[in-house]
Amino acid sequence: MKHLLYTALFCFLVLQSVNSQQLKSPNGKFIMEFTLQKDGTPSYSLNYKDKTVIKPSKLGLELKDDKKSLLNDFTVIDTKTNSFDETWKPVWGEVESIRNQYNELAITLNQKETDRQIIIRFRLFNDGLGFRYEFPTQKNLVYFVIKEERTQFAMTGDHTAFWIPGDYDTQEYDYTTSKLSEIRGLAEKAKTENLSQTSFSPTGVQTSLMLKTADGLYINLHEAALINYSCMHLNLDDKNMVFESWLTPDEKGVKGYIQAPAHSPWRTIIVSDDAREILASKMTLNLNDPCKIEDTSWIKPIKYVGVWWEMISGKSSWSYTDEFPSVQLGVTDFSKAKPSGTHGANNANVKKYIDFAAANGFGGVLVEGWNEGWEDWFGHYKDYVFDFVTPYPDFDVKGLHEYAKSKGVKMIMHHETSGSVRNYERHMDKAYQFMKDNGYDAVKSGYVGSIISNGDNHYNQFMVNHYQYAVEKAAEYKIMVNAHEAVRPTGICRTYPNLIGNEAARGTEYQAFGGSKPNHVTLLPFTRLIGGPMDYTPGIFEMDLSKFSPNNKSHVNSTIANQLALYVTLYSPLQMAADFPEHYNKFPDAFQFIKDVAVDWSESNYLEAEPGQYITVARKAKGTNNWFIGNVNGYEPRTSNINFAFLEKGKKYTATIYADGKEANYKTNPQAYNVRKIQVTNTSKLSQLSAAGGGYAISIIENKK
Amino acid sequence: MKHLLYTALFCFLVLQSVNSQQLKSPNGKFIMEFTLQKDGTPSYSLNYKDKTVIKPSKLGLELKDDKKSLLNDFTVIDTKTNSFDETWKPVWGEVESIRNQYNELAITLNQKETDRQIIIRFRLFNDGLGFRYEFPTQKNLVYFVIKEERTQFAMTGDHTAFWIPGDYDTQEYDYTTSKLSEIRGLAEKAKTENLSQTSFSPTGVQTSLMLKTADGLYINLHEAALINYSCMHLNLDDKNMVFESWLTPDEKGVKGYIQAPAHSPWRTIIVSDDAREILASKMTLNLNDPCKIEDTSWIKPIKYVGVWWEMISGKSSWSYTDEFPSVQLGVTDFSKAKPSGTHGANNANVKKYIDFAAANGFGGVLVEGWNEGWEDWFGHYKDYVFDFVTPYPDFDVKGLHEYAKSKGVKMIMHHETSGSVRNYERHMDKAYQFMKDNGYDAVKSGYVGSIISNGDNHYNQFMVNHYQYAVEKAAEYKIMVNAHEAVRPTGICRTYPNLIGNEAARGTEYQAFGGSKPNHVTLLPFTRLIGGPMDYTPGIFEMDLSKFSPNNKSHVNSTIANQLALYVTLYSPLQMAADFPEHYNKFPDAFQFIKDVAVDWSESNYLEAEPGQYITVARKAKGTNNWFIGNVNGYEPRTSNINFAFLEKGKKYTATIYADGKEANYKTNPQAYNVRKIQVTNTSKLSQLSAAGGGYAISIIENKK
Repeated sequence: MKHLLYTALFCFLVLQSVNSQQLKSPNGKFIMEFTLQKDGTPSYSLNYKDKTVIKPSKLGLELKDDKKSLLNDFTVIDTKTNSFDETWKPVWGEVESIRNQYNELAITLNQKETDRQIIIRFRLFNDGLGFRYEFPTQKNLVYFVIKEERTQFAMTGDHTAFWIPGDYDTQEYDYTTSKLSEIRGLAEKAKTENLSQTSFSPTGVQTSLMLKTADGLYINLHEAALINYSCMHLNLDDKNMVFESWLTPDEKGVKGYIQAPAHSPWRTIIVSDDAREILASKMTLNLNDPCKIEDTSWIKPIKYVGVWWEMISGKSSWSYTDEFPSVQLGVTDFSKAKPSGTHGANNANVKKYIDFAAANGFGGVLVEGWNEGWEDWFGHYKDYVFDFVTPYPDFDVKGLHEYAKSKGVKMIMHHETSGSVRNYERHMDKAYQFMKDNGYDAVKSGYVGSIISNGDNHYNQFMVNHYQYAVEKAAEYKIMVNAHEAVRPTGICRTYPNLIGNEAARGTEYQAFGGSKPNHVTLLPFTRLIGGPMDYTPGIFEMDLSKFSPNNKSHVNSTIANQLALYVTLYSPLQMAADFPEHYNKFPDAFQFIKDVAVDWSESNYLEAEPGQYITVARKAKGTNNWFIGNVNGYEPRTSNINFAFLEKGKKYTATIYADGKEANYKTNPQAYNVRKIQVTNTSKLSQLSAAGGGYAISIIENKK
Repeated sequence: MKHLLYTALFCFLVLQSVNSQQLKSPNGKFIMEFTLQKDGTPSYSLNYKDKTVIKPSKLGLELKDDKKSLLNDFTVIDTKTNSFDETWKPVWGEVESIRNQYNELAITLNQKETDRQIIIRFRLFNDGLGFRYEFPTQKNLVYFVIKEERTQFAMTGDHTAFWIPGDYDTQEYDYTTSKLSEIRGLAEKAKTENLSQTSFSPTGVQTSLMLKTADGLYINLHEAALINYSCMHLNLDDKNMVFESWLTPDEKGVKGYIQAPAHSPWRTIIVSDDAREILASKMTLNLNDPCKIEDTSWIKPIKYVGVWWEMISGKSSWSYTDEFPSVQLGVTDFSKAKPSGTHGANNANVKKYIDFAAANGFGGVLVEGWNEGWEDWFGHYKDYVFDFVTPYPDFDVKGLHEYAKSKGVKMIMHHETSGSVRNYERHMDKAYQFMKDNGYDAVKSGYVGSIISNGDNHYNQFMVNHYQYAVEKAAEYKIMVNAHEAVRPTGICRTYPNLIGNEAARGTEYQAFGGSKPNHVTLLPFTRLIGGPMDYTPGIFEMDLSKFSPNNKSHVNSTIANQLALYVTLYSPLQMAADFPEHYNKFPDAFQFIKDVAVDWSESNYLEAEPGQYITVARKAKGTNNWFIGNVNGYEPRTSNINFAFLEKGKKYTATIYADGKEANYKTNPQAYNVRKIQVTNTSKLSQLSAAGGGYAISIIENKK
């Protein structure tokens, strides 16, 4: 990609010191205005198509143990503008190539009294604004401690927000849709129980935050390139409707240890009057550094199955035995232990999944509960909880690898840390080497429960550094990482495409923990997925869990057609078919779509979108002329109207439509669906009903002459 | 050693449940009595030669988040006694073989209400008592959190104590001698400044604590085998003169996360009416597990010199340049930086030390400040502060190794962590491998400043585990460890003899930081050294630092003869000759003793001892018939009277006596000494004057026929 940077157009011009400065987006739709207020406080505002999106909002940082903060008494001593335009190709993605075009304004501020400089760098794209704080090398600002970042996002009114409560330890909440003024009143109700949670304010929310204004503007607030900095929440002043950054602190209340030269992550504001453009935005990726991995040939999108849903649903167990009150790795002898008989990760069961994967064209098999330690893995603040290399007696690592290999299937490793991150880092090299020695190329890591490292939570700077450390070390071993319960992604997968997946939101597992809202999946692409792909683990066909797990009264709030659509609407280079082989075998015609659907794309067209209500997207499978469409629908039944103009002119295609049955409903009748085939061209139109919590999926295959 | 365990005499007898139980030491001098108080609180008392040493003292643990603690409501459900006698050979030590003889009493207590059992195991030796809490595998006590250990040591009166203030982050205080009742009033004055310190109570003191009673009993309180537990302090109830254990907490106030089966470290009480027996006690080692390293052939005692005192004294610097406001490893380019000209670890200077070591028979050369990062290594809460493998441009790792090798000298590595322990653990494997690749067999590690890991201090359980992790991992690489600023030793060097040294007390460096009390070295063997050898770094000949480091007004409070004696009185398998070659060259006759003295011994005879006043010890060099004597003296000039009965009958020896000059004084005339030779046999006697802060050293070499 480097050469593109050189060919990019640079035009530097040094201007007079001015206290107000405007920046226009390349397409002219956005205007950002930087203003230095009377007391020397930097501020900015943002307009889109002559509408105010962000009212004048203060910028700055409050420092700890420093006589003076970086909040005011600044003067502008330098102003630089720059235009940039490049096109780059992601290793995997929703599209084959991404245009990175923006106009840039860099304001250098000087605080006379302390003789300290900071730079505020704005990048205005055709779909929104990104800005960050930069701390250049200088005499009087070398090491400093952040008490709080004071970045404001002043709203123009009492917008509708699609939000989850701010929390230092979990992101796995259902989304609440409400006016900004209603957040305070709904905060407690919005906090469903979690194994580890730490909230901080009744008006605190997480990013990426989706908003809609009364006059139809869609606004998304998030951050990009979160590296060596603590994760940002937003706290709302609900008198004035002003959001302010709220960084995640450590036990001492410290929100960041900074050494100059350094910079903050980008603060991002994506805006459009068309919700589909929010979903199509590549601004977050563009604000991250280009790929730092030279050889990316080993990074491959993949569909997988695995020994997972049966533990989540309660049908089987991660642990091997019930004999021990506790486990001491290296001391407890499992070879002599009496198996509980419920252990999911046993050779026979794993082979069943390998056979199923091979028979149906899945590239990988994930197995959880394969390694010693699950008998007491959680809730004991246990330091040495797993060693990541010692399997249970009934899990034959080498044998299963050989078996999988003979069937052309890859095993996917699982590393649950139970929050014991020092222990994980101590074993990381051995664990990754063990994976390579046994033919594993991808790992699903987990951080369930409280962090076992005094004073840390899931999203403070120290932990953000840990997740990054794991991804970069994995890259050294050519290992792909799919991190669960880690900090929410911020587009880092551009720089480290071996980060092929994250959970960092409420995934399918919650359908087995009491269920999620039926419109949850119409919100994830507007929120969590703004930062990168999600390992949502869709594909559940058996919605009544009590049928196979008597003690589980949960119901999956989704129709089968909706589950199929998720493979297209929830973009990820890593997609699981999460249900049991026997459940797929009950519905072979529906399962056909999961077998057919691609996981890597050359084009994506968002056809319909409204947060909380519906999303319809068409994607072209990379390296083919075939398309796949997904539609997910919210609470109300709805007729989706789309056309096929995206198809190649003059070509004929066979479209197989997997739709909700007439009586389908996510609760009362989730398994009612029908499959039909029609012929389509680029002039075809489709009017298709989607049930409540339903949707449809379409495969469009070019007709062979 | 195993076979010795088998030959040891075991006699188990299960007794009736009794609420009072006596245990006698093998020599009958000690009687320990266990009593269950009315409310079911376990307690113990200790008698020595019919004198009470410890009055009835409560035992137990207070638990956190547990409905009931492990303090009372116990009943005795089992009592076991056992006698043990073995002799084992340490890899290195003060003596060639150690007898481990004790009578044991194990009381199993049951807490009816909670149906939980704990065992209190007492081992009564001929020189004192050790006991610990054991938590066997059981249903109702698996994982638990310690709020506080409630172990009491009830004194019989207002004893004289030789103490340093309790602190979670430093052990580097001068000792204060006072009555127990005076501790509270002296606590503040006793706290000299340190780079990292956290005190907790005006009557909190550290172990090993030395005490003397009015009727001449010497009592030492400490712990043995501190593994996976937090370090114990003692807090004094100075109304009742009762010490109680005070464990080191983490940021959350937690003092221990325990998983059964587990046990506490041993709590030790060494007692004698002869101070020399306290110094000769091997109880602390005996309470540790036998050596766990199979092949110990690579573990070798050694005398060394190094590039260290010149930085400590301020003559030169650890850092390479003054050019950078801060360093970013891998980014900052030192090859282009302007050297400050004061960098001590440069090739020419290191070669000077290698030449000096080779010329004078020293086995090793330590070099501090060899690796990038010293420009901003301290006080910035800097995570990635060192990588432990990147030398400064003027330090040629391979070249210097080759040069040293050609002269038969070993280089000693230095790993300063600056308290950034996660960073150290991340680099540990690479760092140790780098050492082996470059011929280094030993590392001096450092933990200066606050621990950079949220909520940890130097001595809590999490950090105790770190130091142990470093020692065990070093053993995998056949690397010897000399850890500075780590938790005070508790005899673990028996189990891991590659832990050849620790600082963990106020070392010679403080003679350059304002000076230490002249009787400091008469206390270290009674306190800090009870747990294991100390890398005190003696051998300073130039006491007036301003002579070579103009800005340093410190004075070394010791005579040259005292400095020589330290090589014998402060036992360590690792002894540094800390001063500059040029200073040794000024006093070649005195330096001769440092060249001659051994570092490993077959016998040790403590000839005279009184804490705070004087220590005289004679040691036989392992594998020879030669002896070395050291005498250190406190504030008052004193005539030491010894005889040579320890010499082999009928043999003649030449004794070279390095003594204080007539006018010698640690302050006014520290460099006045004389050297004389006399002939001695096992019937000889010596009367020798030692100056204030002085002493003498004697080498006794058998005459060749």
